[in-house]
Parts: sequence; structure tokens; C-alpha cells
Amino acid sequence: MLKGIDERTYLIYAPIREKLVLVEERLQGLGPASPDHLRALVGHVLSSGGKRVRPAITLLAAGCGPNDNENPIIMACAVELLHLATLIHDDTVDNSDVRRGRPTVSNQWGKHVAVLFGDYLFATSATYVCDTGNVRVIRRFSETIMELASGELVEYFNTFKTDRALELYRDRIYHKTASLFCTAGETGAILSGAPEPQVQAMREYCYNVGMAFQMVDDLLDIQGDASEMGKPVGKDLMQGVLTLPTILLMEKYPEENPVQALFADPSHDGKLDRVLEMINNSTIVEECYEVIGDYCGKAAECLEIVPDNPSRSSLLSLLEYIRERSR
Amino acid sequence: MLKGIDERTYLIYAPIREKLVLVEERLQGLGPASPDHLRALVGHVLSSGGKRVRPAITLLAAGCGPNDNENPIIMACAVELLHLATLIHDDTVDNSDVRRGRPTVSNQWGKHVAVLFGDYLFATSATYVCDTGNVRVIRRFSETIMELASGELVEYFNTFKTDRALELYRDRIYHKTASLFCTAGETGAILSGAPEPQVQAMREYCYNVGMAFQMVDDLLDIQGDASEMGKPVGKDLMQGVLTLPTILLMEKYPEENPVQALFADPSHDGKLDRVLEMINNSTIVEECYEVIGDYCGKAAECLEIVPDNPSRSSLLSLLEYIRERSR
Repeated sequence: MLKGIDERTYLIYAPIREKLVLVEERLQGLGPASPDHLRALVGHVLSSGGKRVRPAITLLAAGCGPNDNENPIIMACAVELLHLATLIHDDTVDNSDVRRGRPTVSNQWGKHVAVLFGDYLFATSATYVCDTGNVRVIRRFSETIMELASGELVEYFNTFKTDRALELYRDRIYHKTASLFCTAGETGAILSGAPEPQVQAMREYCYNVGMAFQMVDDLLDIQGDASEMGKPVGKDLMQGVLTLPTILLMEKYPEENPVQALFADPSHDGKLDRVLEMINNSTIVEECYEVIGDYCGKAAECLEIVPDNPSRSSLLSLLEYIRERSR
Repeated sequence: MLKGIDERTYLIYAPIREKLVLVEERLQGLGPASPDHLRALVGHVLSSGGKRVRPAITLLAAGCGPNDNENPIIMACAVELLHLATLIHDDTVDNSDVRRGRPTVSNQWGKHVAVLFGDYLFATSATYVCDTGNVRVIRRFSETIMELASGELVEYFNTFKTDRALELYRDRIYHKTASLFCTAGETGAILSGAPEPQVQAMREYCYNVGMAFQMVDDLLDIQGDASEMGKPVGKDLMQGVLTLPTILLMEKYPEENPVQALFADPSHDGKLDRVLEMINNSTIVEECYEVIGDYCGKAAECLEIVPDNPSRSSLLSLLEYIRERSR
């Protein structure tokens, strides 16, 4: 049932395995419960697997609080649905044909359907959150959607620009990725009745994890193997999006900036290969891992005030897993 | 300030005029409060005028309840923002260049921005609703977004099809239009502390008003003058969307169905003109007004259990206004 989850994550999820199965069952139940015209769409989106990291974070965060109730499971479903909805809209505006080796919704059904179905899933996720009855959590959830959309818009307005790159990058990946991680963890802690300092600690943990997670993803985009990843290499760069490895490259070569050369003429594959080569034949990858390591270190520190239990141990193991994703 | 509002609606809105100005002030304040990269977008969308019918309904419905507080004003803002967000996505998927005589967001900024900015506005509207602190109202709001998106998808999947036309039409215009009217009125009543039977009556009133409102719009699409409306005539039909006048036309001519002839070859302007001519030279327009009149009659009946006061009188006047919009 948890088909996107490899052996390592299976172990990390051990304290919440049964609850994650309940989340998965609820998600899979959405298809049959949907109106006829939406059933195939829901089925397609929910069958793509995926590691369910965000719902797992909600459940693990909730595991650190005193109360055991259904609300974190509801929240975990909502968080994953929101994530899936953002992927649909992102793939639509990015003209992406493939995700995890399968056609995107926009590719298979067209952009018209993809926009509207993304809206439907956004709204479905928000309706789920209402079942928790917690206004603070509901508000945080809808603010997250604002942050996600705002982050995507900032990215779009800054494509092919190279100034203030690092500042814009950190801000963008907060909005696009870390924001939802924060919400996943924070709401899990709130819904399990954790005291406020632990709610804040969980939010901070998730901020750092989310930043690290996205930076690893960005590194994989530069390094990865196209067939393994299910998407082309260097995609960010070809779309004019700067990430940590390319930003570090620009800092190393301020005079003959290979990234600016590429942006000036993005149709030349040779220029992309040059950038990828320069990155992979330098210390940049290691430097990226240092930055990622710093964020993971800060995440671990945040957990110091959280009671020691299997969920907390898993959150620490998750840091190792994220750090080592591409090695 | 209330620039989209003509003299007639100005009178109808009399009991809630000050509150509607407060709603407008809050909406106009969104632009300056937005992040830099969004300010121009927000400004564009909020400066288009419009009659603010949905916020007015929220305020008038609230005027029928015993409590006077800020929540209906908050809700009215949210309802209008939601409406504006749906228009942005609709214009994007419909490839519409013009709305109210001005460029659409997708036309001026491109579809990429329009999709993401629509998401941002959807989320902003939902975050507003959280300020009411009322989970029932928040849930109804997010369910409405599901209904809006679902209705648009049903419309898309049924373009250029002619069977079960009337049944699909009623269902579609509930989802696309009446649903938000229901929510506008129902939430206004809830937030002003109205007893449950009156909340339900207000919802039913709004259902009937919403159905009538959309049917008038659909009739104007067939009848209207392109320069007055700010959009081309017969747009629905050219996009394969059946509405009441064209459905009645098909019922009158089952043998040589002029609508099916058009759908078989939509590039022929002659066929569109034929359909428009047949409609305008028949009793169809009057028959549409009878159907619209029935809905308005049912709406008026719903208000019988609502206390008689200026807000209720305005809701009754609104029915007349809607009925007479195109005469």
C-alpha cells in the first residue's frame, strides 16, 4: 500500500506506520467517493506513489505531543492533498509532461482540466482541515497556500535574472517548500496538544528540514540521472531558475559567468553541459552538502526540547536520510 | 468608491451602504498590503468595478439576523475575493482576453501568472474567512470552492454534447454560480446569529436568486450587444456550452437541430447567426423569462419567515432588479 516508500523510510516511519496506512486508506478512498467525472483524475494523482514525507512529518510531530486522536491523521491527508494540488498547477505552468515517470495531469488531460482539478484538490484539502475544528490550524493551512502561490510567482518573475540570487533563493524555497513542511509539523504538534514552546520548536525543525530537503532536490536536479529521476537534468536552469549549486558557481566565476552565458542563449545545449560540468568538477557539490548539513544541524537542535520518544528519534533519522538522499 | 454600482443597485443596497463601503475599503487595502511583486496584479483585479452583488447579499442576509458585528463584513470581502479568483481561472482556461472591457489577467500577464495568482487569491479569501473564527462558515466556504471547480470541470467535459442538456445545465449552474450565492447568504445569516430556520431560508433564497442570476447572464450572452457587454455575443455557444435559450431551441427543433449543426462545424459564423436569429425571432426569450420568474417567485417565498426589515425589502427588490437586467 505504501508503494512510494523504500526500506529506509519504512524504518524511519516505524512509530507511525499504522497511522500512515490509515492516511493512505483515506486518500485512496477519495477516488471512489468522488463525482463520476473526477474519479479517473483523482485515481491518477493518488496512484503516483511518493514517499508521503509531509504526512509522515505531521504524524511524527503529533507523536511528540500528549494527545492521541484522529486529527493528525486528518491533517496528514490534507497536507498530502495540498502538496499534490501544487504539483498539478506547477506542472501545468511549467509545461512539464512527466512526473515520476508518468504523464502529468496537464499532459494527459490538458491544461484546462489541470487548472480546474488543481483548484478542486486545493479546496478538498482545505475542507479536510475543517474536520479538525481548529481555526488556528485551518488558518495556518490557508496561509500556506498563499505562501506557496506567492513563492511560485516570485520564481516566475525572477527567471533568467541573476542579481540578489542567494537572498531570493532562500526566500523562494521557504515559500515553495519549507512553508508546507512547517505547517505539516506545526499543525501535528498543535493537534496533539503539545505545549506552545514545543509547537514552535517543531515549526523551526520543519523549517530547517524543508530548506534542506529542497536544497537536496535542487542538487539532484543538477547531478541526477534523467532516467532515474523521471525528469530531464538541469531543468531548473533551462527554465531560468537559479538554485544553490548554480549560485555558488556564479560566485566562483564572477568575471566569465557561465550561468549568464547560458541565460543569454538558453537554446545551446553546449552551454548547459558546460555549467553542469563545471559544477560537478568542482567543490561546489560538497559546499552544498555543507549548507544542507548546517540546516540539518539546526533542525536537530530544535528537537532538544521535544520529549525523547520513538517519534522524535524518527525525526532525527529523517535528517540523516535527507542528507544522504543522493549519495 | 462603489464604481460598478448603478443608481438602481445603489437604492437596493441602501440598508447596507456603509458596510459595503467598509468592504470596499478593505478590498482596496489589499493592494498596498500585498508583497511588491503582487501589488500591480491585486490592483488590476480590484479596480475592475463590478456590482459587488455577492458581498451585498452577505450583508443583506446578515441584516436579517439579530447580531451586529464585524464578521459579515469580513465574510463579504472573502466572498468577493473568491468570486474574483474564479474569474481569473475561468478567463485563463477559456482563453478570454477581455473582461468588463479590460484585459484579463491571463491576457496582460500570461497564463502562468494567472494560474498562480488565482491560487493566491483563492487562498487569501480562505484566510479572510478564518478571521470569523466560525468553523461551519469556513467549511462551507471551502466546499463552495470544490463546487465551483467541479462545476467548471463538468462544463468542460460536456462541451459540444447535447444529451441530457437541461439536467446537466441546472446542475452546472448550481455549481458555477448558485453555490457561491448560497454561501454568501447562508454565512451572512449564520454570522449575524440568525436562528437555523432562517439560515436555511436564506440559503434557499440565494439558491433561487443564483439560478435566476445565471440564467439572465446566459440570456444576455445570446441577446446582448458586444460593445455594451465588453465581450463577444454567443460566446457560450461557440465554446460548446449549452444554456437555457439554446436548450429550449433544441427542444423546439428536434428534427433539424440548428445547435447540433453548429457544433458539427463551429467555424461557420453563418450557423451561429442562424441560431441567434431563431432564438430572437421566437418565444424563447419570453419562455426564459418565465423560468427566471419562477425562480424569483420561489426566492420571494423563502423570505416569508425572515423578519420584515429594510434588508429583507432590499432582498426582494434585488429579485426585481435581476429579473429586469436585460429589458
